[in-house]
Amino acid sequence: MPKISKKGLLMPESPIRKLVPYAEAAYKQGKTVYHLNIGQPDIKTPEVALDAVKIHSLDILAYSRSEGSEDYRKKIAGYYSKNNIDVTHDEIIVTTGGSEALLFAFGSIMDTDDEIIIPEPFYANYNGFSTASGVNVVPVISKIEDNFALPPIEEFEKLITPKTKAILICNPGNPTGYLYSKEEIKKLAKIVKKHDLFLIADEVYREFVYDGKEFYSIMQEESLKDHAIMIDSVSKRYSMCGARIGYLVSRNKDVIKTALKFAQARLSPPTLAQIASEAALNTPQSYFDEVIDEYVLRRNILISELEKIEGLRVAKPNGAFYCIAELPVKNADNFAQWLLEKFDVNGETIMVAPAAGFYSTPGVGLNQIRIAYVLNKESLKKSVAILKEALNVYKD
Amino acid sequence: MPKISKKGLLMPESPIRKLVPYAEAAYKQGKTVYHLNIGQPDIKTPEVALDAVKIHSLDILAYSRSEGSEDYRKKIAGYYSKNNIDVTHDEIIVTTGGSEALLFAFGSIMDTDDEIIIPEPFYANYNGFSTASGVNVVPVISKIEDNFALPPIEEFEKLITPKTKAILICNPGNPTGYLYSKEEIKKLAKIVKKHDLFLIADEVYREFVYDGKEFYSIMQEESLKDHAIMIDSVSKRYSMCGARIGYLVSRNKDVIKTALKFAQARLSPPTLAQIASEAALNTPQSYFDEVIDEYVLRRNILISELEKIEGLRVAKPNGAFYCIAELPVKNADNFAQWLLEKFDVNGETIMVAPAAGFYSTPGVGLNQIRIAYVLNKESLKKSVAILKEALNVYKD
Ligand SMILES: Cc1ncc(COP(=O)(O)O)c(C=O)c1O
Ligand SMILES: Cc1ncc(COP(=O)(O)O)c(C=O)c1O
Repeated sequence: MPKISKKGLLMPESPIRKLVPYAEAAYKQGKTVYHLNIGQPDIKTPEVALDAVKIHSLDILAYSRSEGSEDYRKKIAGYYSKNNIDVTHDEIIVTTGGSEALLFAFGSIMDTDDEIIIPEPFYANYNGFSTASGVNVVPVISKIEDNFALPPIEEFEKLITPKTKAILICNPGNPTGYLYSKEEIKKLAKIVKKHDLFLIADEVYREFVYDGKEFYSIMQEESLKDHAIMIDSVSKRYSMCGARIGYLVSRNKDVIKTALKFAQARLSPPTLAQIASEAALNTPQSYFDEVIDEYVLRRNILISELEKIEGLRVAKPNGAFYCIAELPVKNADNFAQWLLEKFDVNGETIMVAPAAGFYSTPGVGLNQIRIAYVLNKESLKKSVAILKEALNVYKD
Repeated sequence: MPKISKKGLLMPESPIRKLVPYAEAAYKQGKTVYHLNIGQPDIKTPEVALDAVKIHSLDILAYSRSEGSEDYRKKIAGYYSKNNIDVTHDEIIVTTGGSEALLFAFGSIMDTDDEIIIPEPFYANYNGFSTASGVNVVPVISKIEDNFALPPIEEFEKLITPKTKAILICNPGNPTGYLYSKEEIKKLAKIVKKHDLFLIADEVYREFVYDGKEFYSIMQEESLKDHAIMIDSVSKRYSMCGARIGYLVSRNKDVIKTALKFAQARLSPPTLAQIASEAALNTPQSYFDEVIDEYVLRRNILISELEKIEGLRVAKPNGAFYCIAELPVKNADNFAQWLLEKFDVNGETIMVAPAAGFYSTPGVGLNQIRIAYVLNKESLKKSVAILKEALNVYKD
């Protein structure tokens, strides 16, 4: 029998995949499971986006340009302009989700065995994209006691080798919810310029920013012209994760030219989804205001309820819709499985994402979980009550 | 300024990309350009597919399962069953076009510097996917005088090294239009088993088979159970290239398990496109009958008109909607550019794809072009008349 590639064997499983069979068993037992483990919001997609595909008058569903239609990219440039980012349509490539934008960015700037430095905990699929690209992730630990702020810049400096090609940040962060300050971005700008690296910023949560904080994009940092690659996506912004539309944005012409070759090889991003996503740009501001209000409410309830649990520590997020909590258990993996398999409160339990999967350093974050606040406030309250009760009972 | 990766520099441009500025200049001059260069059919998408997205009642456009929805995969298995292929839904992964299925297949079975043997001329983007995956293409030449039939199996045998992981065929072929016989498939089956390789068959044109010939899929070859990986796509079958839905199909459980990890990293194939593609499975047989009749008519006209041109040789295709013609010119690249830049018949000219881009061996196929018969018969007739006239005038 022919063999799977080493790369294929190394490809990580999703951190919650192991738990899925236990969740399914829990359903079978008739349990209700509150899903705190996923990044799929329960928020409705703007009608203007859904309607656009209902009224299309296509008779051939044809390939679009590999970089996305020019009209659409011009409108995207308009969106950025309103967000204090000055880019032209030819500095934007429309991709199949932010996921593909990450793959194109990795492929365009890194070869096999090159290194990318990423503050951990980080979005778990960065591991998958790195493995798929033959690239090594070099983690730099950010700490729950600092709310997962940018680690001291010397920690990055220590890790830079001739193989280092880029630093990747997620801002605001999944799974941390941390929002980088302008000062932190400026520190990163300085180090990437000093060492001639790329700075990739995954800004897919750019609009999910709370408490009157200001979001500072790497694209606002003009000195980063040739260094900055921004990853964006419609998935969370308009709660249209299934569209599969994202963008790669850079003012570095070589990066765009190269990413375009990757884009051409796969021909075209999805056409129907581009129609929906282009229409989504007309979503009224009131939609976002409501969504942000809702997330702030949820976050406030979640954090204040979590803080009441003895022995639990939680990093307060200013953005995105995740937080990391450190539990008074040894192994959050076992605990998460136990929650599904052995525990319930009146037939109800919760599913959480063990945070170890968001760290690249082995053995770190073992007692942490990621909670996504993509459920309504009643469900969140119930979920935290279940967690509290579970921690009372659980022994590891 | 930070540098692009070697891989990025190596990524090939699409073989017609160089011609695009000349085509654009031709439009500006007011010329009509008949596009014989593209794989985007002019055939209408089945209404049942387009309607499905018009009547959807989604209020959240959510991620689907990474492997595609179970319902949809069960229906795909039903489609294969009608086509004499016995697979279950868990042997199918829904991908973002056949393109992504190829990428997942390459990533799952090959590491950096591994080799894949491909009869050339071949679909140009195999080069791109190979480069993106760090894999080396080892071409084996098939010949226009044999209609691009399978090269003698000894030619493959000679090329096999410890680094060889797979043989890739496209059946029916783009750009050749050649349909492999059952005997040819059996020869390939024997050699991949002997050397413990994978056999990847890109069968995206599986339904475009003419002249009463029978299509024989590698999935019908039971002895290939662990060796066969089939690539499929809705793009051409239902003329819905812009949907971006394809499939990776294999009975090798490790391949499916591994490809699924690549699929999980990118989260989900496009949801709206899955709705359209699932509905497309209900396309009435009459649609396909008409489409096949149309392509046969076009092919017959195209080939018989081309054969009238002195000094031109064309391989007669039995499948897909392409053919390769050898022209009485030295360099088809220059000729194709000249057609756009310098030539017209009453304001009309043609755009063709120089075939060199479909060969991996340098210097081969320089006097060949690929013609796609995705235009109606009147346009095809006119196009060949223009080609004939051009060859009369052209000097290289
Ligand atoms: C930080 C981050 N980046 C990228 C993505 C990829 O999203 P998509 O491919 O749907 O745009 C996600 C999705 O959860 C994410 O959380
Ligand atoms: C031979 C072949 N394989 C694969 C593809 C990729 O098609 P898609 O990604 O649209 O399924 C094409 C498209 O032209 C093709 O001709």
